[in-house]
Amino acid sequence: MTILEQMGERARAAARVLACAGSRQKDEALRQIARAFREEKAVILAANREDIERAKADGMTPSLLDRLTLTPQRLEGMAAGAEEVAAQPDPVGRVLEGGKRPNGLLIEKITVPLGVIGMIYESRPNVTGDAAVLCLKAGNAVILRGGKEAFSSNRAIVRVMQEALSRAGLPWDSVQLVEDTSRRSAVEMMELTGYLDVLIPRGGAGLIRSVVENARVPVIETGVGNCHVYVDKDADIDLAAAVIENAKTSRPSVCNAIETILVHQEIAERALPVIAEKLEPHHVELRACERAQKILPQAVPARNEDWETEYLDLILAVRVVDDIEEALSHIARYGSGHSEAIITRDYAAAEDFLNRVDAAAVYVNASTRFTDGGEFGLGAEIGISTQKLHARGPMGLQQLTTTKFLVRGSGQIR
Amino acid sequence: MTILEQMGERARAAARVLACAGSRQKDEALRQIARAFREEKAVILAANREDIERAKADGMTPSLLDRLTLTPQRLEGMAAGAEEVAAQPDPVGRVLEGGKRPNGLLIEKITVPLGVIGMIYESRPNVTGDAAVLCLKAGNAVILRGGKEAFSSNRAIVRVMQEALSRAGLPWDSVQLVEDTSRRSAVEMMELTGYLDVLIPRGGAGLIRSVVENARVPVIETGVGNCHVYVDKDADIDLAAAVIENAKTSRPSVCNAIETILVHQEIAERALPVIAEKLEPHHVELRACERAQKILPQAVPARNEDWETEYLDLILAVRVVDDIEEALSHIARYGSGHSEAIITRDYAAAEDFLNRVDAAAVYVNASTRFTDGGEFGLGAEIGISTQKLHARGPMGLQQLTTTKFLVRGSGQIR
Repeated sequence: MTILEQMGERARAAARVLACAGSRQKDEALRQIARAFREEKAVILAANREDIERAKADGMTPSLLDRLTLTPQRLEGMAAGAEEVAAQPDPVGRVLEGGKRPNGLLIEKITVPLGVIGMIYESRPNVTGDAAVLCLKAGNAVILRGGKEAFSSNRAIVRVMQEALSRAGLPWDSVQLVEDTSRRSAVEMMELTGYLDVLIPRGGAGLIRSVVENARVPVIETGVGNCHVYVDKDADIDLAAAVIENAKTSRPSVCNAIETILVHQEIAERALPVIAEKLEPHHVELRACERAQKILPQAVPARNEDWETEYLDLILAVRVVDDIEEALSHIARYGSGHSEAIITRDYAAAEDFLNRVDAAAVYVNASTRFTDGGEFGLGAEIGISTQKLHARGPMGLQQLTTTKFLVRGSGQIR
Repeated sequence: MTILEQMGERARAAARVLACAGSRQKDEALRQIARAFREEKAVILAANREDIERAKADGMTPSLLDRLTLTPQRLEGMAAGAEEVAAQPDPVGRVLEGGKRPNGLLIEKITVPLGVIGMIYESRPNVTGDAAVLCLKAGNAVILRGGKEAFSSNRAIVRVMQEALSRAGLPWDSVQLVEDTSRRSAVEMMELTGYLDVLIPRGGAGLIRSVVENARVPVIETGVGNCHVYVDKDADIDLAAAVIENAKTSRPSVCNAIETILVHQEIAERALPVIAEKLEPHHVELRACERAQKILPQAVPARNEDWETEYLDLILAVRVVDDIEEALSHIARYGSGHSEAIITRDYAAAEDFLNRVDAAAVYVNASTRFTDGGEFGLGAEIGISTQKLHARGPMGLQQLTTTKFLVRGSGQIR
């Protein structure tokens, strides 16, 4: 048995206990974890400083260093997050449907934990706490495999959580950290069939692609977002400009930010200068198709690969389209099925866009930046699924459960 | 572009049309298909005879020949099935949840088609009609890859469906058949990312294992069932014997049949002879653990691999256990998460078993043979999922859909 298989075995045993733990006990464990994050602040921050010093010596970029850094505020955020999750309703044990069959069998479909969840993620150590807390609330054991840069921080956070779980009478192995942070351990996790019920990668496009292509265990694909705003021919131009500014610049590095705008030819001449002016103070680089460039001479010419690029940066591709059909075709071809928006005052165009765009979230007259568990009212979020099976869009606690059928009989045979 | 990629491209185009087709049009198409199955009976049966003659020349076993054979009754079953599916409620366009957010955004989660479904299956040509009809009702395009033995039958059935779809104004390419029935085409389908939204294998354990291990597209694992009946210490022995007889012998070749019984030591001496007597007329071979063999001297000694074998035959493994804990451990270790039953008169044991067994369907005092879409009241069934993501247990029309969030705003930014 490899080390990971041994961890898997222990996780399965822990999952059997967690699956039968009541809400009260799970919530108490989460509050213990919150308390421990606060009480063990010094230990966790000291471990984080080790990671930071190592990263600085290795010449890590400032933006990655920022992601790696735990501050007292971020730690307090993890603690408060655990308390908020504790306060949410238990996603386990809900009766979703059911009733008596003609033969007298009483059949109920109820929610149950998934079992053992694997998480592969990159440098942000607060994911360690946030993700584990959500998995635990839904009655799952979790095996975490963070990035090597954050290893000391992750180890300290997991240790603190394990001790808190023990105090609450739940298994130590409910949360485990993979100590080997080499690429080998990630690959081994992707092949841990029989132990992992699902693997959730969180991180950049490269990590997610690698997991989707190589995993033999079921995967939930998260987070790649090539999102569009389509400005219809009779859009409110100021509203369009405000939404585009927000969707592009409020946080360009996240998956629900937009990468391309599509503008109806009849409104392009009036709308594009207003939009460009709104983006100007944010120093957004515009990459425009030929027609758009005639209106925006300051823009760089767009190349074909611009339509398929998730910049995650202050860059915006701009394309003038003949009509809504061309916009829908463009989105069907280049969109990643994350979040798409139309800006229009026309009822039929709005409904057409809502019906025909195939994406996790489709918007009329609002910023794509709202695609988020908290904003959608799902509570804390484990990620945003861009696949269609099991979960699509922001995933809350409910998406960390599966179902089982309970069948109560009195000797029925078929 | 490979042939399969071209088929995928055409399927995606068809799926975009199907996704926006109304219930009335889809149901009319299904009724047209039913009518065509009846009117083109001679054509389909002639094609089937080609397959049968080829199979006979190749020395196919009688039981496989039976699966391959279409009779007028089986064809009528396909037609009636299409009509029944047409009569079911549309699974697409249901509002599952939603409401106004504090910022005025109206968010709704609705059901939408998955998109393009791939099916890989073996020799039964009626699966071609039954599966396609379910996919269409849920607004999906489907690419079918049946076994080479049934190729002529499948081609005739698909052609008849395509013509019926055209008559109803739906795209010809809504249903396509892969003409290459070599192993290569199956592998290519498993890697058809970007075209297939899900791949559903239906067939023997070997096919399903191969798909689960090799597929890069999302898969729904179906149909492997290593199911148990546990006879608790104060079970009604006659009820236990009747349920075991039914679960083992009513149709031993299907996944919801049982393979092993676990009997509490305190009842084993009284129960096992009654059970054995009930099974005797069916010529069930018993493979018993040491303790069980002392009670059933006629049984063959069980070996360790018996506990993990899905016989799909008139063979039953028998194990005496110390208590319910040992039964639960055995099921956790060897069960495939399909269907598990306890026979008991004890309330606490029944609830304990329902809570702690991790399977798609858990029974008290009833036969595992009820794990079936029709028996559960889900209507027609596309398969029985033994995985935990997306769908678990019998899958009806609803499991062939995904969701999307519709967000209606008035200029909201974040």
